[in-house]
Order: sequence, then C-alpha cells, then structure tokens
Amino acid sequence: MKKITNDVQNVVWDMLHGFYFEHKDRISYDSKHNIIYRKDLAEIQQDVVILSGGGSGHEPAHFGYVGEGMLSIAVSGQIFIPPTPEQILAAIRMVDKNKSVLLIIKNFKADVDCFLAAESIAKKEGRSVDHVIVNDDVSIEDDVTFNKRKRGVAGTIFVQKILGAAATEGYSLQQLKEIGSSVISNLHTLGVALTPANNPTQKEVSFTLENNEVYYGIGIHGEKGYRKETFVSSEKLAIELMNKLKSIYRWKKGDKFAILINGLGATPTMEQYIFANDIRRLAQLESIDVRFFKVGSHLTSIDMKGISLSLLKIEDPNWEKWLKADVRVSSW
Amino acid sequence: MKKITNDVQNVVWDMLHGFYFEHKDRISYDSKHNIIYRKDLAEIQQDVVILSGGGSGHEPAHFGYVGEGMLSIAVSGQIFIPPTPEQILAAIRMVDKNKSVLLIIKNFKADVDCFLAAESIAKKEGRSVDHVIVNDDVSIEDDVTFNKRKRGVAGTIFVQKILGAAATEGYSLQQLKEIGSSVISNLHTLGVALTPANNPTQKEVSFTLENNEVYYGIGIHGEKGYRKETFVSSEKLAIELMNKLKSIYRWKKGDKFAILINGLGATPTMEQYIFANDIRRLAQLESIDVRFFKVGSHLTSIDMKGISLSLLKIEDPNWEKWLKADVRVSSW
Repeated sequence: MKKITNDVQNVVWDMLHGFYFEHKDRISYDSKHNIIYRKDLAEIQQDVVILSGGGSGHEPAHFGYVGEGMLSIAVSGQIFIPPTPEQILAAIRMVDKNKSVLLIIKNFKADVDCFLAAESIAKKEGRSVDHVIVNDDVSIEDDVTFNKRKRGVAGTIFVQKILGAAATEGYSLQQLKEIGSSVISNLHTLGVALTPANNPTQKEVSFTLENNEVYYGIGIHGEKGYRKETFVSSEKLAIELMNKLKSIYRWKKGDKFAILINGLGATPTMEQYIFANDIRRLAQLESIDVRFFKVGSHLTSIDMKGISLSLLKIEDPNWEKWLKADVRVSSW
Repeated sequence: MKKITNDVQNVVWDMLHGFYFEHKDRISYDSKHNIIYRKDLAEIQQDVVILSGGGSGHEPAHFGYVGEGMLSIAVSGQIFIPPTPEQILAAIRMVDKNKSVLLIIKNFKADVDCFLAAESIAKKEGRSVDHVIVNDDVSIEDDVTFNKRKRGVAGTIFVQKILGAAATEGYSLQQLKEIGSSVISNLHTLGVALTPANNPTQKEVSFTLENNEVYYGIGIHGEKGYRKETFVSSEKLAIELMNKLKSIYRWKKGDKFAILINGLGATPTMEQYIFANDIRRLAQLESIDVRFFKVGSHLTSIDMKGISLSLLKIEDPNWEKWLKADVRVSSW
C-alpha cells in the first residue's frame, strides 16, 4: 500500500504543519500539543468556547472545522488514538479563565477517558468546563444480538456546527450542553465499507473484504461491521442504511430531517453524489421533509472506501437555522 | 472494482441530481443539458458571465465552483467526454443577450472543438462570447523528447477563481480574456499517480502500476505519464514535481507564487497535507514567497490515488486579491 507519507512517526505533525501553512492568516498552531485554534481566540466575543478533537485519521475532522461559527480549538491525537489529557488540558488552558469551555467528545472509551480527565483537572483549576458525548452510531454487534454500539461518528460534525453557531448567539454553557444533548438524542448514523482502512502505523488491516463484498456497520477505526454482503449497487446500499435508520426513527410523513452523506476517505465525489441521489429518492418516497442536506468527506477513516448516512430529526427550528448559518472554516 | 453507482449509463445524471438536491436553495439544474447554474442568473449584476465545463469524472470540477464570485454556469459531459456543442450552446443561451459570456476551456482537442463550435454559433446569433484556453500541464511525452503536453488540468481552478472574482468587479469581456491569458501563461501543473483511474464506463484501465510504483506526469483522463519509479516517500514526489517546475520558472528569491496541491480523487486528506508540508519546506528552501496556498481534491480523475502540484507566478497583485476574495460555492 503506497501512502504519501514520510517518517510514519511524524504523520500527524507533518499534516498539521501543512494545514497550518494553508490557513495561517486565520489559524494558529501549537505544535507541541498538536492544537489548531482560532488566531483571534483571545479576542472572540462569545462566552463559551467550543473545543473538540480526537484521534487523527479522520481528516478533515476536526481541525477543518476550526473557525468562526464552529470550533474554536481542535486537538489531534496520533492515528486512531485520542489526544492525551495533557494535550486537551493545554487546549483548555488557552481559553481566558473568565470564559467557559464546552468539550465535544466522540463516544469511544479512550476518548471519553482522556477528555474527562482533562475536564476534571481544569475544573480543579477553577475553570468552567462541561462536555457533550456524541453517540450517533447505531451499528449493531451482529445481525442477531441487536446490541447497539453507540460510537461517535460522522454525526459529530452536525453537533459541532449546531453548537458552534449557537455559541456565537450567546447561549450559556448549561444551555449549550442541553442543546447538544437534545441534538444527540435525535442523531443516528450508519455506514458501509467497500474497502478497509490502511493505517500507516500498523501492518495489518482490521478486516478484509472480497473483491465484490461490502461490510455494513463498520466503525471509523476499522472496527468490524454487522454483515458482509455482495455489492450490487448504490441504491442497494442506500436502502439498507435508510431502512435501518427508519426502524429507529419510525418517522411520520412530514417529519423534518437534516441529512449528512459522508465519504469515508477514498470515496470519489461522483460516487458520493450518486449515493446522495438514492437517499434523496428514498426520502421522497418516505415523504420525510429534508430541510438540510450535506454531502462530502467530512469525518473519514483514513483511506477507507465507503460511505455513511447520518440523519438528524429536527425537533427545534433553531437547529436548521444553525446548520445553515454562515461559517468560516476550511471544510464545512 | 466496486463503485457506488447504479446504471452506469446514468452516472452523470444521478450525480447532478444529488448535487442539485444539496444546493437547490441557490442553484438550478437543467437536467436535459446537464447544466448547473446560479439560481439568480437572470438577476446577477456583472456584465460578463463566466461559463466553464468539461467531461465528468473530475468532480467537484466544475459544478462545485458555481456561485457568487466564481462560475455562473457549468456544463457536464459524460465521463471523460466533453459536453456537446448543443449542451454548451444551451448554457450560453441561458444568459441575457445584453451580457457577455466568457468560456473557460481545458486544453484537450475534443473540449476545444466543442466549446468553439458553440461559441461560433452563439456569435452568429449576435451574442458576445469569447474564451480562454487553460494549458497548465507541463508533463512531457517522455524523459527524452521534452515535448510538452500542455493539457488543461488542476490549475484551471485558479483561472476560474481569478476570473470569477474579477468579473464581479465589472471588467469587460476583453479585459477578462487578457487577465485570463496572462494568468495562464504563468500557471504550470505537474501530477503523479499512485494508482490508475477506474472509469465505470470502461472495462480496462489506461495504465497499470506495480504495487510499489508511481507514475509521474499522468493526465486527468488516465493518460500515461513520462516516468515510472519506485515509490519512496512524499518528500521524493514533492522534490520531483518541484524541480520540474523550477526548471520552467527559473524563479528568483522572493518571487511571489500561489500554490495548489490537488488530490486526484482517492487521496486521503491526511496525505494531501503531508505532501503540502513537503512543498511548504521546499518553497522555503527556495526562498520563494508563497502568497496563497490551497490544498484539496479540486479537479480529480475519478478514483485515482495521486496528487498534482500547480504553481502560479503572481505577476499582478490583483491575482492574489482575487484568489483570496470571498466566494459562495460548494467546493472552493
């Protein structure tokens, strides 16, 4: 597997330097802690600063969402490994002590542990910090047990956008946490892989697929899915993912949704839009009201070829407003 | 090769429907002629409308650049086949007769023939139409002949951005053509493939590579390159591409450049930024002044894994201003 890298120990550092160079007019970079943050962090007017992060390998998540109207700070761990509590704490400490910080955490045990450890220390330092944990993944262990996995995956981007926009309107830390929790309880994601991810720091892939196979319900770190199946068409993938989500939402005609179609890293734009068109048709057949629709490689799994579908049932018209609000980030 | 498609005859139509659904608040779609255009086309204030297009398979080029400050209209052909003169003419006819139209054409014989045929008919209808032909590719036939290919590749995006921004400032058709020609003569691109492109409408790939090989100087339709070589590192690729471009520009210390690092379709964001960081370091070693730097999959070759490097020597400070100007499109 040829990968456009140099010393594999330095991939995250190399990448962040490249990103920083592209955006140095509006972004700053702490290369000791792998933190990308708004250059105007000291001057921003909002009371609550939104901070997120996680393992690398999910680009453009999360540094691509740093900027006005979304994240103020993103912390990057090594590939598929969350940032350490020290890194996260260093990020929290960048914020003025008279402001609050809301952490957006993807629901993986290692991520939650590291972020909450940092939060705990920051609170002891007298800081106002709280968090939301995104658990949008509705993949199941296997076809029999229906044990939901509840990992944090692509829907995280919607949470970051909504809370980022709401924060600019002056909501308090407690209010933002409640908005986030309410969004998360209405947010579900399911994905399918056509190829595994090739982690440059590991020799082995976590699963293999035959030339004609797809794998439903995979995770963003190469976690195995719930069923392998022979690939037939984009439409067939769309029907499987949509039906699973329908069984969770049990939507009624006219229910309002926001939809994210997410390429997992090596999925060409053409194929993302073909799949998006299948989802459009299925949504119309179901008579659900799609108020917001977004397509792109937003939270990836290195070079996995595959796609995920996230639905957010819109329970509050503000959510739609915040999804559509102007933003100055590189990758929204 | 699993591809997320349905009936292969409909890939372009399916894709454009998906894109239109995502952007229907600000975009319109003529599904008969595969034209994506600004919804407010009839009301836009500028005297010259910028129109581009080409074969499909290069997404998000060119529909992803339709919007305020860049293209007003994009026409899509079938995969790697330019739109027909009829399609292009239908696009030109969408514009008020009292406005002018500037066509941005990538330099492939079929593209040039189709666009100029449409221009010729439109002129006979009394319309004011002119064109620029982008020929940024400096790949050579082989290591011996040094016969330059001069195809139109990723640098086209810079031409579209600059002319799109300039058009909003009220420049005339003639002035925009001169600006475009001047930009094009300072714009050069060179690419490298790690894998070939898999065209869903064709059974065979146009070249093959061994597991450890890369191919310098490939084209965006799978055209062969000038040299195969064993893959070593991102830095090695960066040095090859940068050295070839240096031999063309023969830059002096402090010369001003805009740089585009372009993923060719299946290149993960992480690898694009690692390569970008190598280019950053080489540019600093050369002491050239990088005024603008952009990284992303902007003009692709379906699912090719690879990357291209475009340099624009900035001869006029307006070019930098126009590259940095605000824009409302999906993919800049």
